[in-house]
Amino acid sequence: MQIGHEGVTAAMGFKAAGGHTGIKKGNTKDMAMIYSIVPCVAAGTFTTNLVKAAPVQWDQHIVHDAETAQAVVINSGIANAATGKQGYEACRRTAEAASAALHIPVDSVLIGSTGVIGAQIPVDVIEKGIGILTPMLDNSREAASIAAQSIMTTDTHPKEVSVSIELGGKTVTIGGMCKGAGMIHPNMCTMLSFLTTDAVISKQMLQEALSSVVKDTYNMISVDGDTSTNDTCVILANGLAGNDEITARGEDYNRFQQALFEVNRELAKMIAGDGEGATRLFEVKVVHAKTKDQAVVLAKSIVTSNLTKAAIYGRDANWGRILCAMGYSGAKFDPENVDLYFESKAGKIKIVENSVSTGYSEEEATRILSEDAVTCIADIKMGEQEATAWGCDLTYDYIKINADYRS
Amino acid sequence: MQIGHEGVTAAMGFKAAGGHTGIKKGNTKDMAMIYSIVPCVAAGTFTTNLVKAAPVQWDQHIVHDAETAQAVVINSGIANAATGKQGYEACRRTAEAASAALHIPVDSVLIGSTGVIGAQIPVDVIEKGIGILTPMLDNSREAASIAAQSIMTTDTHPKEVSVSIELGGKTVTIGGMCKGAGMIHPNMCTMLSFLTTDAVISKQMLQEALSSVVKDTYNMISVDGDTSTNDTCVILANGLAGNDEITARGEDYNRFQQALFEVNRELAKMIAGDGEGATRLFEVKVVHAKTKDQAVVLAKSIVTSNLTKAAIYGRDANWGRILCAMGYSGAKFDPENVDLYFESKAGKIKIVENSVSTGYSEEEATRILSEDAVTCIADIKMGEQEATAWGCDLTYDYIKINADYRS
Repeated sequence: MQIGHEGVTAAMGFKAAGGHTGIKKGNTKDMAMIYSIVPCVAAGTFTTNLVKAAPVQWDQHIVHDAETAQAVVINSGIANAATGKQGYEACRRTAEAASAALHIPVDSVLIGSTGVIGAQIPVDVIEKGIGILTPMLDNSREAASIAAQSIMTTDTHPKEVSVSIELGGKTVTIGGMCKGAGMIHPNMCTMLSFLTTDAVISKQMLQEALSSVVKDTYNMISVDGDTSTNDTCVILANGLAGNDEITARGEDYNRFQQALFEVNRELAKMIAGDGEGATRLFEVKVVHAKTKDQAVVLAKSIVTSNLTKAAIYGRDANWGRILCAMGYSGAKFDPENVDLYFESKAGKIKIVENSVSTGYSEEEATRILSEDAVTCIADIKMGEQEATAWGCDLTYDYIKINADYRS
Repeated sequence: MQIGHEGVTAAMGFKAAGGHTGIKKGNTKDMAMIYSIVPCVAAGTFTTNLVKAAPVQWDQHIVHDAETAQAVVINSGIANAATGKQGYEACRRTAEAASAALHIPVDSVLIGSTGVIGAQIPVDVIEKGIGILTPMLDNSREAASIAAQSIMTTDTHPKEVSVSIELGGKTVTIGGMCKGAGMIHPNMCTMLSFLTTDAVISKQMLQEALSSVVKDTYNMISVDGDTSTNDTCVILANGLAGNDEITARGEDYNRFQQALFEVNRELAKMIAGDGEGATRLFEVKVVHAKTKDQAVVLAKSIVTSNLTKAAIYGRDANWGRILCAMGYSGAKFDPENVDLYFESKAGKIKIVENSVSTGYSEEEATRILSEDAVTCIADIKMGEQEATAWGCDLTYDYIKINADYRS
């Protein structure tokens, strides 16, 4: 399975467009659309935050109640969260405008928003934007790339991933784009992720595949511990690949699910590595855990610890903070029986054995921690389960970005 | 009840000393002792981190199993955490040295350590330090102040509080000192807090009073979400005030408990306001909650949110982040029915009503948020319970301090 970076137009029959419509100042791209030439089955996972943005509420309704979906309208700049009835009404009008422009049912239109919480969406700008973007919808790689750029907020680069597999002699492709740099601590799904596939698959199996991979991908990343009000991950499957329909678990389902996992893991790692102000991707693997849950809780506790994240920025093998973060995680383990390693392209070093220092070389550790991507491995020697979490370092620029986000 | 700042020698019969003994470099003060001229009943609360520092394990044993305690030996620079059997042996040798110098039982000596995790304590330096400090033990305010300075790590100033009350015509005094600036997210108690009182009170009622006030004071502060391996709060009561012994709940107990609450609240606020890199104290009050637990969970979630803390640094009334932090806290509330206010010496402003913006003046809000201490009030309009949490802003200096703590 080869990972590519073609985005939401990689699968057959999907078009995309993006550009500046006037939600953001200047000429910054602020709106994108995705469209399938035929109706799709849709699946989605959404934030568990009690405060749910209006587009999250809208999409949950579509994914749960509508048989098919065919388009997505996304804006950046304003999150349409904490906007009350007016916010939901903005979603309805957005869907109506897309419905009229694309000649599809209103309840076939999914919506995504990201940006400042609390401000109302200027619906007239969105309506005008749909008018501008509809004729630009195109199945080229460039169109997908412009769409990915248009959904960025504090992201430093667009995030697109694609993968193709063979199912019964047919090529099935999954492509996706996502955004996210701050307020990233998904608990169900990340900020905004949009996936398209030409696979023939039932709505139920599509939802099952998505839900299962989200747990090990987006739900394992954290930039700042803040679970957003807008977390959304939706996938559209239009069936144009012509493979035998996936309607139950089995070999085809497993291969599709594995491909979906790869796409989402890459997208999730891109979000973590592009965390606000981050200089490096910080991967945490907990191995030899007794249960999967225990490994997940420990890995997330380490990757979320501000003190550990600041040490990673300083390339400081401050393992006491890691052991401390494990200790307050709530997971049970033997605090006297932990081994810790750091690993990167520059090598691997064991820094702690049975919870005390190995007397490792600090210079060697700093050399390993100086790479763009570094991994901490915590071996708790209790069983055969493991989990991986992804985050980033905590830097001056995180403060700079967030102390003054709105001005 | 008048709050003073006399520290651990405020109560009758307590002496203190502090100074440089050689654990830290240069002439930085790194060791302190507290001593009562008569045996005391002792109570304590300790970290819930599974990784417990050696002195925490030692003190838990003393507080639970010994009838009385009479001295405390504290060092800064090294936390004696993740140090295995050798670390616990260092505690035993420290207690033996203090026992010999002060002519008290070994199990009358409490120990506190704070600093780097993972390094072994140089016991010979501690033993020498006990020899230096014992003759310096003094009941003056200055001696208490030097002791408070000697337990600092990244603290920018010593933290001492005292209060006196009348019980049955006798003056009862409680004094305390504490330290803490990083790795502050107590879950049982804060980093290190030492309290002394001349009250006559049973060990059982002393523990009950301490445990009850710790919940609403130290356990409600957070600097960085990292629960330390060393959190310790101990109180010694030597009975020299001569009041009728407090052996049960009642008016005297209530007044003593209230005084203990005031001392600990002031100390806790001092820790929060002196958080690593902090420019201001951030207080969060959740009011009109249905249950106390709900108010606690919501207040702690807001005060711990990195995005909110960065906004407070930027004097930005970014209330969407506050509502978001409430939403992911796990507490149930009506997300459409929240009012938010900011308050400080400069005034009070309502920024959100029923979860949407009041159209408040951003300039006025920034003016209010520019003070040294700012309060956010979240009214969830469900009942009569409330909770207050204390934290600080997240700044460039937090990163600076923690990216390079050990070098």
